[in-house]
Order: sequence, then C-alpha cells, then structure tokens
Amino acid sequence: MAELIGFIGLGALGAPIATNLLAAGYPLLVHNRTAAKADGLVARGAGRADRSVDAVRPGGIVVTLLWDDASVEEVVARDGFLDALGPGGVHVSMSTISPAGSRRLAAMHAERGCLFVEAPVFGRPEAAVARQLWIACAGPAAAKARVRPILEAMGAAGVFDFGEEVGAATTVKLVGNFMIGAAARSLAEGLAAAEANGCDPEAVVAMLTTTLFPAPIYQSYGRLLVEKTVVMNAGQADIGRKDLGLFRAMAAEAGAPTPMADFISGASGPRR
Amino acid sequence: MAELIGFIGLGALGAPIATNLLAAGYPLLVHNRTAAKADGLVARGAGRADRSVDAVRPGGIVVTLLWDDASVEEVVARDGFLDALGPGGVHVSMSTISPAGSRRLAAMHAERGCLFVEAPVFGRPEAAVARQLWIACAGPAAAKARVRPILEAMGAAGVFDFGEEVGAATTVKLVGNFMIGAAARSLAEGLAAAEANGCDPEAVVAMLTTTLFPAPIYQSYGRLLVEKTVVMNAGQADIGRKDLGLFRAMAAEAGAPTPMADFISGASGPRR
Repeated sequence: MAELIGFIGLGALGAPIATNLLAAGYPLLVHNRTAAKADGLVARGAGRADRSVDAVRPGGIVVTLLWDDASVEEVVARDGFLDALGPGGVHVSMSTISPAGSRRLAAMHAERGCLFVEAPVFGRPEAAVARQLWIACAGPAAAKARVRPILEAMGAAGVFDFGEEVGAATTVKLVGNFMIGAAARSLAEGLAAAEANGCDPEAVVAMLTTTLFPAPIYQSYGRLLVEKTVVMNAGQADIGRKDLGLFRAMAAEAGAPTPMADFISGASGPRR
Repeated sequence: MAELIGFIGLGALGAPIATNLLAAGYPLLVHNRTAAKADGLVARGAGRADRSVDAVRPGGIVVTLLWDDASVEEVVARDGFLDALGPGGVHVSMSTISPAGSRRLAAMHAERGCLFVEAPVFGRPEAAVARQLWIACAGPAAAKARVRPILEAMGAAGVFDFGEEVGAATTVKLVGNFMIGAAARSLAEGLAAAEANGCDPEAVVAMLTTTLFPAPIYQSYGRLLVEKTVVMNAGQADIGRKDLGLFRAMAAEAGAPTPMADFISGASGPRR
C-alpha cells in the first residue's frame, strides 16, 4: 500500500506530476491557492486540502511545487506547517528557488526534526505527461531513499543525487536553466543570420540538431523557430527572468563572474 | 577503379581525411605548403605534388582544406590552377571561409567551365580518424553527385546538401561554429558557478550532458573542464576568433544583428 502524499502547488507542472502519482497508486491530499485547480485531481480520487497545512500528516511526506523562495517560505511558516509535519516528516521542495533559500528552509526543518529534500525538476508540462522529467535532488540520505520511488513515480526519466548538502541541486537547476537560455539565444541568432543569408532554416535546424546539437532544447526550440510559432507566453518569460536572476545572484554570492548571464539578462536582442 | 584525387592542405584535419581517402582506395596526389607534412601520406602510397597545381588533373577532382579566404584564393590564382583543372573539373573547397568568398570563387570557376563545390566540415581531427565528420555542401547538382562518395570516404558520418547556391553551406558552418562557441562559454560559466557553490563539477556535467545537453560539444568540453585540462592551443583559439569574425561579417552583410556573437568576441570572461 503506497503511502499518502500531500501535494501543494498544482500549476502547469504540478498538476501533471500529481496526476502521475495518482496513476501510480499514491493516495494524495492536494492543495492549491486557487482551489479550482485541484478539481481535476479531486475528481480522479485525490483528497482536497482546504489549507496547505491540511495536506500535511505527522511523519508523512509533503511535496511543494511553487513559484519562488517567498511562496515556499510562506507555506512553511503558515498555520503550524512544521508542527503538523513533525519529527521524521519529509518536505520535498521541487520549486526553483535560490540555493541560499533552500538552505534556510532546510535549517528551519532541522530545528523541528523535520527532513527537507530539495528536488527541483527539469521538464515542461508535456515532459511530465510523457514521463520524461529529470529531477536533481539533495538532502539527508535516509529521506532521499524514502522519497526516491515517489520522484520516479512523478514521471522522472532520471533522478540525480547531488549529495546531502541542500543547495547543490537547486544550484544545478539554476545552472541548467541559464544554459538553456544561452542555447536558445544562440540558436535564434544563428538561425536568423542563416535565413538572412538565404539558407532554408528548416534544413539548417535539421542538420545542426542531428549532428552538433542533438539535444532537446535545440530540437524543440529549433522547430518553433522554423515554424515561426515561437510564442513565449508571459508566464514562461517570467520564469526565464526569475531563474536567470537567481543564477546571477547565486554566482555573485559565491564570487563567480557571470558575464554571459549578465549579457543575456540585459540584452536587447530579439526576444521572440 | 577509384578516380585520382588531388588533395591540397594536409593540416590537422586534412591529413587524417586524406588518409581515409587513401584507405578507401582513392589514388591521391597530395600537396602541402610545408612539404614535410606530406611525407606520411607519401609513405602510404600517395603521390607528391611539389606545387599545388601539380595536384590538379584536367577534368579531375581537387580538394582544398586551407586556412582562410585568402589562402584558397591564392591557390586558385597561382600557376594556372583553373587552366589545369579545365572544363568539367571539380574543386571541392572544404576550408571554413566566408560565404561571399565562396561565391566569388564559384564565379571564377564558372568562367573557366570548372565546377566549384563548397563542402565545409564539422569535426576535430579525432572525429576524422573515427569517421564521425559531418559535411555540409552546396554547388552544382552534377558535381555534388560526383563527389558525394568521396565526401563519404573522407570519414563523413553525414553529408548535408544545402542546395545549388554556393554560400549556403559555408553559412551553416559559420552558424554552427558560433553556436559551439556560445555553448562552450555557457558551460564554462555555469560550471564555474556550480563549483563555486560547492557542487561536484563531475556530477553536474554527468547530469547535464545526459539530459538537457546530450551533445558532443557539451560532453567533450565538459570532460575537459572537469579534468581541468582545457588547454586551448593557439591554433584552436585562432580558429575560434577567425570563424566568429566570419560569422559576424556574414550576418552584418545580410543585415542580421548578432548581439551574442558580438558579446562573445569582445567578452573578457575566462578564456580557458
């Protein structure tokens, strides 16, 4: 019998991940600030938690997939969340937040005997549906061992363990998102130059993404550029800006220069 | 019986490519400005051409793999090269040169009834040995059909046809090299930030290059960064600078902005 999981944050990525957990046989207690977003999961058998703390069970497992540092800290601080989770309870934090914020949260949990595992996730909602997510994780070994089958049931094609020190997995997530941004920018710029020089962009993308760059970001973004259907919605643009800001802040705190990230975040080039 | 091929330019990439042709049974006439670089191929059965024009046969096929626009134009202009090649002769130009220069060369060849195929090549010398090169080509259809088996015998894992208009394949080569430069810069910057934040760079590279970025450039450069053995020799740095300059010039001529390439070429970040 799979154990009950609390799941807080049913956004574009949270909803399909929670759906995967339900499909894998995990009983869920779900909560979302906008309650209507829980309706679909409740209709499929999940229990509804009216407040975030209502998704928490003593010694249990609760997953959060929220917007930023502040929103995770707010959930943790509200309504006696940590008291409800209690000793031995595990909070799996999947939001893309700052490594420093993740370390602060881990310390708050440790004070109450709760366990904090950071497990940021790479993948768009379609990848969750296709069970092609990649999850990086860091935190106490025993807690990671307990949640690993759950991470896999969420739709992970791979779970990558970055050790016991919280902050490492969120760092990798921010590095990856920065590199995605750089790759997308270089592809857009290169393809525009090729097209201006009379090349068929479809043929260029077909060659480059099967030879030098056979990677999902180049392939999917290349297809969008060729089809001229790159519509970055406001939400996606916000995520890109937020994560690039987190990457630069993290590197600055550690004394690592980020000239390229600085350039990308300030660049006035075509933001398609 | 495979036909005789003239091969001019036995540098780091030219030598293993010519060796592959010899191994595939093509009789070769080889020439290099520094004659000693031909010794190994001559020892394996290639004929030695004292002057570049001596590698050319009427109506035959001659390959050049040289440094830049000027060096290709110089070979073509010297000692009656085009007269020696004559009507129906095919010049396969594999150097990374400007699309404009390639078009000029094509016009010079057409005036004499010679055929000009541009066939710039992606791959390091190790890739030539491993027969994992990728070649882009453009030029007259009949000439391309004649040289295609030769391009394959050079060690190409893939030959990509960009049409009859010369300039398209060199454009793709410059776009690809710019994107390689951007990818390498972003990986170096991201990895340095991760390491400064206490992540094990080997684990970061292992995750990123098997998930988001399973591409040769990220994998090979990532390995070098992890081993701290990135020694970009002067020759490689020169190639990077030259090709980035060609990319920017090509885009500028076509009216396409290149903010990221401008940034990379002027950036003072860590050039390892």
